[in-house]
Amino acid sequence: MQAFLITFCISDMDLECASQETVKQGLLARGWPPIKGFSKHVKTKVLEFFSHLIKLGQDDPRRVVHSLKAGLALTLVSLFYYYQPLYKSFGVSAMWAVITVVVVFEFSVGATLGKGVNRGLATLLAGGLAVGAHQLANLSGQIGEPIVLGIFVFLQAAVSTFVRFCPQIKARYDYGLLIFILTFSLISISGFRDDEVLELVHKRLLTVLIGGSTCVIISVLLFPVWAGQDLHNLIASNMEKLGIFLEGFGDEYFKMPEDGESKEDRPLLQGYKSVLDSKTNEDALANFARWEPRHGRFQFRHPWKQYLKIGALTRKCAYRIESLNGHLYADIQAKREIRSKIQETCTTMSMESGKALKELSMAIKTMVKPFAADIHIENSKSSVKNLDTLLKSGLWDDETDLLEVVPVATVASLLIDVVTCTAEIAESVNELATMLKFEVVEPTVSPEKPETGQPKIGIS
Amino acid sequence: MQAFLITFCISDMDLECASQETVKQGLLARGWPPIKGFSKHVKTKVLEFFSHLIKLGQDDPRRVVHSLKAGLALTLVSLFYYYQPLYKSFGVSAMWAVITVVVVFEFSVGATLGKGVNRGLATLLAGGLAVGAHQLANLSGQIGEPIVLGIFVFLQAAVSTFVRFCPQIKARYDYGLLIFILTFSLISISGFRDDEVLELVHKRLLTVLIGGSTCVIISVLLFPVWAGQDLHNLIASNMEKLGIFLEGFGDEYFKMPEDGESKEDRPLLQGYKSVLDSKTNEDALANFARWEPRHGRFQFRHPWKQYLKIGALTRKCAYRIESLNGHLYADIQAKREIRSKIQETCTTMSMESGKALKELSMAIKTMVKPFAADIHIENSKSSVKNLDTLLKSGLWDDETDLLEVVPVATVASLLIDVVTCTAEIAESVNELATMLKFEVVEPTVSPEKPETGQPKIGIS
Repeated sequence: MQAFLITFCISDMDLECASQETVKQGLLARGWPPIKGFSKHVKTKVLEFFSHLIKLGQDDPRRVVHSLKAGLALTLVSLFYYYQPLYKSFGVSAMWAVITVVVVFEFSVGATLGKGVNRGLATLLAGGLAVGAHQLANLSGQIGEPIVLGIFVFLQAAVSTFVRFCPQIKARYDYGLLIFILTFSLISISGFRDDEVLELVHKRLLTVLIGGSTCVIISVLLFPVWAGQDLHNLIASNMEKLGIFLEGFGDEYFKMPEDGESKEDRPLLQGYKSVLDSKTNEDALANFARWEPRHGRFQFRHPWKQYLKIGALTRKCAYRIESLNGHLYADIQAKREIRSKIQETCTTMSMESGKALKELSMAIKTMVKPFAADIHIENSKSSVKNLDTLLKSGLWDDETDLLEVVPVATVASLLIDVVTCTAEIAESVNELATMLKFEVVEPTVSPEKPETGQPKIGIS
Repeated sequence: MQAFLITFCISDMDLECASQETVKQGLLARGWPPIKGFSKHVKTKVLEFFSHLIKLGQDDPRRVVHSLKAGLALTLVSLFYYYQPLYKSFGVSAMWAVITVVVVFEFSVGATLGKGVNRGLATLLAGGLAVGAHQLANLSGQIGEPIVLGIFVFLQAAVSTFVRFCPQIKARYDYGLLIFILTFSLISISGFRDDEVLELVHKRLLTVLIGGSTCVIISVLLFPVWAGQDLHNLIASNMEKLGIFLEGFGDEYFKMPEDGESKEDRPLLQGYKSVLDSKTNEDALANFARWEPRHGRFQFRHPWKQYLKIGALTRKCAYRIESLNGHLYADIQAKREIRSKIQETCTTMSMESGKALKELSMAIKTMVKPFAADIHIENSKSSVKNLDTLLKSGLWDDETDLLEVVPVATVASLLIDVVTCTAEIAESVNELATMLKFEVVEPTVSPEKPETGQPKIGIS
C-alpha cells in the first residue's frame, strides 16, 4: 500500500515531465536511458518520502509509539482466531473484534474512548431495535417480511443520516449514528436469513466490547496521549507564539535596515501564523477531551469551554498581529525621526504585552496562578497612557507631513488593540485559574527569564 | 438512537438544575409535581430539537435529499439478502456490500468517489498481499503459522498507521490506509481458519465493488451534490460577504449616532466573521473536488489550487476587516470634524473595494470575465492617492490634537491595506479567469445593480 501510494503520488506529479522527456529522447531510438533517468527520479522521490516520514517521527515521537500500540492491539485481538478455545466460542464473529480495533483505535485516549463508547452503545441500541424490527417483520408472512424490513431499513437510515447533519450531534455522536445505521441494517437484514438474531446480536455486541476494551486499555495504560493535555498545551503554546512575536516586534519594526540589507532578510517572526487557523484543531481536541476520565491535573468535567474561550480570544489577538505584521515589511515606512519619537512607548507596549502573554502561557502550562502578568499588563496600559500624553503634547512640529504619521499611528493603534486583547486574555486565564484553583507560588526567580529575576519584574 | 441522544443531551444539560429543583420541592413530600415539571421540560427540549432539525432541512434542502438517497442505497443493497439467487452466490459476504454503502456514502460526489476508490483499491491491494502473507505463513508449519501471521499483522498495522500521519497522504488516502489495515488483517487472520483465502478475497472484493458502485451511481445520478461546485460557491460567497461589509462600512463608521442611540443598536455587518474560519472547509472541499469527474463547467483537473489561493487571499483581507470592525464600535472615536475631513475619500475607498469584491464574486459565480472590477479597483486606488494628497496638504490646523487623529489614521491605513488585498484578490481571480477561459460578455445592465446601470460604473 505504501509503495503504491508513493508510486501514485510520484506518477501524479511527474507524469507530464516524464512523458515529455520520453518523447524528447525517443524510447526506441536510444534504448534504456530514459527509463534509467525515471528510475533515478523515483529513487530520489522515495528517499525524500522516507526522510519526510523520519522527520514526522522526530517531530512527535508519540506518533511512533502510537503506531506500535495500534500494531499491538491488532495482534492481541487476532488471538481470537489463533487460540482454539476462543475461536470455538466466537467463530467468524471474532472478525468484529478485529474491525472494532482497526476503526476505534485513535491517537488520543479521548478520541478512542469516544469512538469506543459510541460504537458500544450504538451496537447495543441498534441491536435491540433490530431484534424488535425482526419480530415485527416476522408477523407479516413470507412475502411481507422483506418489504417491512426494507421500509424499516430505509426509514432508520434516512432519519439517522439526517440527524448526523445536526452540528451539536455531529461533534460528539457522529460515529455512533454511523454504527447505529450499520448495525441496525446488518442485524435486521441478516435476520431474514438467520433466525438466531438474538445470538447474532449477542456475539456482535460481545466482540465489539472486547475489541473496544482492548483499544481503551492499551490506549490508557501504554504511554497514553491525552487530548485534554494536548488542548491545554496548544492553548498555552499559541499564546506563547503571540508573545514571541510581540517581544520581537518593537526591535524589528523600529530597527532601520542597514544599507543594502532588506528587511525581508532578517529572521522572520512568523510563528504566530499557525494560531490564525487553529480553531478546528482546538474544537476537535475539546470534543475528545470531554470523553476523558480524570488524569493528572485534569478532572472528568474539566472546564474545556473556558479553554475554547481563551483560544478564541487568542485568535482575536492574532488577527490584530496579522495586521501588524503587514506593517513590519510594508513598502512605505514612516520616516526615522517620526518613528523614533514613539519608538520607546510602542516598544514597551509591545514588549510588555508579549511578556504578559508569555507569563500567562507559562501560568497555564504549570497551572500556577499568573503572578507577573498583571504587572506587565499594567505596564503596557500605562505605556498606552504615555503614548496618549505624547500625542497630545504636540511633539510633532507643524511641518510634519501627516502622510508620514499615518503608518506610525496605525502601528500604535494596532498595538493599543493588542494591549486590550491581552487584558481580555489575562482576564479569562484568571477565570480559568479560579475555576481550577491554580496554585499560588511566591515568585523567587522566574524560570524563563533568569537574567532579570522576578523581583525586578515590576519595573521591567 | 435519536431519542437516546436527545435524552442524553437533555440530561447532560439539565441534570444539575433538575436535581436542585427536586431537592427544593421535596419529592416525597409533594408527590408528582417535580416529575411533571421534568417531563414538561423534556417535552419542550424535544420540540426544540425537532424545530432545529426542520431548520437544518430548510437551510439546505439537499440534506433531506441526501438522507433519502442514503436510505435508498441501503435498501437497494439489502436485496442481496432478500433475493434468493443473489444470496446463493454471495451468502453472508453480502454483508460487506451493506457495510460499504453505510461507510462510503457521503454528502458530495467527490467524497463518495474518494472513499469508494480508496476502499476498492485498498481492498484489492491488501487482499493480494494478504494472500501472499498467507502462503508464506503456510510454509512455516502448524506452530509457526500464527507467529508469522502475527508478525505480518503487527508490522503492516504499525507501518500503515504511521504513514497515516503524513499530512499529504492523510488528506487523500487516509481512508484507503484504514481499509488496507482492516482487509489485510481480516484476510490474513481468517486464512488461518479457512484455506479458501482466494475465494474470500474474491467475494469481499466483489461485494465491496458492488456496494461502492451503488453509492457512486446513486450519488452521481440522483440530484448530485458536487464538492467542486460547493467550493466554487463558497469562495464566491466569502468574497461577497467581505464586499457587503466594505460597502456598508463607510456609512456605518462615519454616521454619527443620534442622541440616545448606541452604535451597537444599529444593524451589524457581521457576516464576514465566518470567512475567518473557512480554511478547513475549503481544504476539505478541494480534496473532495479532486476526485470528481467532469461536470457542468468543471473539468476533472480543474485548477482547485487556484481556488485555495483565492480563498487564502480572501481570508487575509478578512483579517484586516476584523481589525476595521474593531474600530467600528470602539469606545474612543475621533471627533466629528476630523472624521468628516476624510469621510469622502475613506467611504469611496471602502465602497469601491466592496463593489470590486462583489463584482469578482459575481464573476466567479457566473464564470464571466470580471469587467467592472478593475474599474472599481482603479477608483479605490485613486482614492488612496486622494487621501495621500489630502494628508499632505496639511488639512488639519495646527491645534489639532494628534491623539484624535490616530483612530482615523488607523481606519484609513487599514482601508489602504484592504485596497491592496482587493487588488491581489482581483489578480488571482483574473488568473483563474484565464485558466478557465471565462466568457467575455459585453456589459449592458449589471444584474446586481439595476438602479445604477453598468455604463455609469466608471464614475461611480
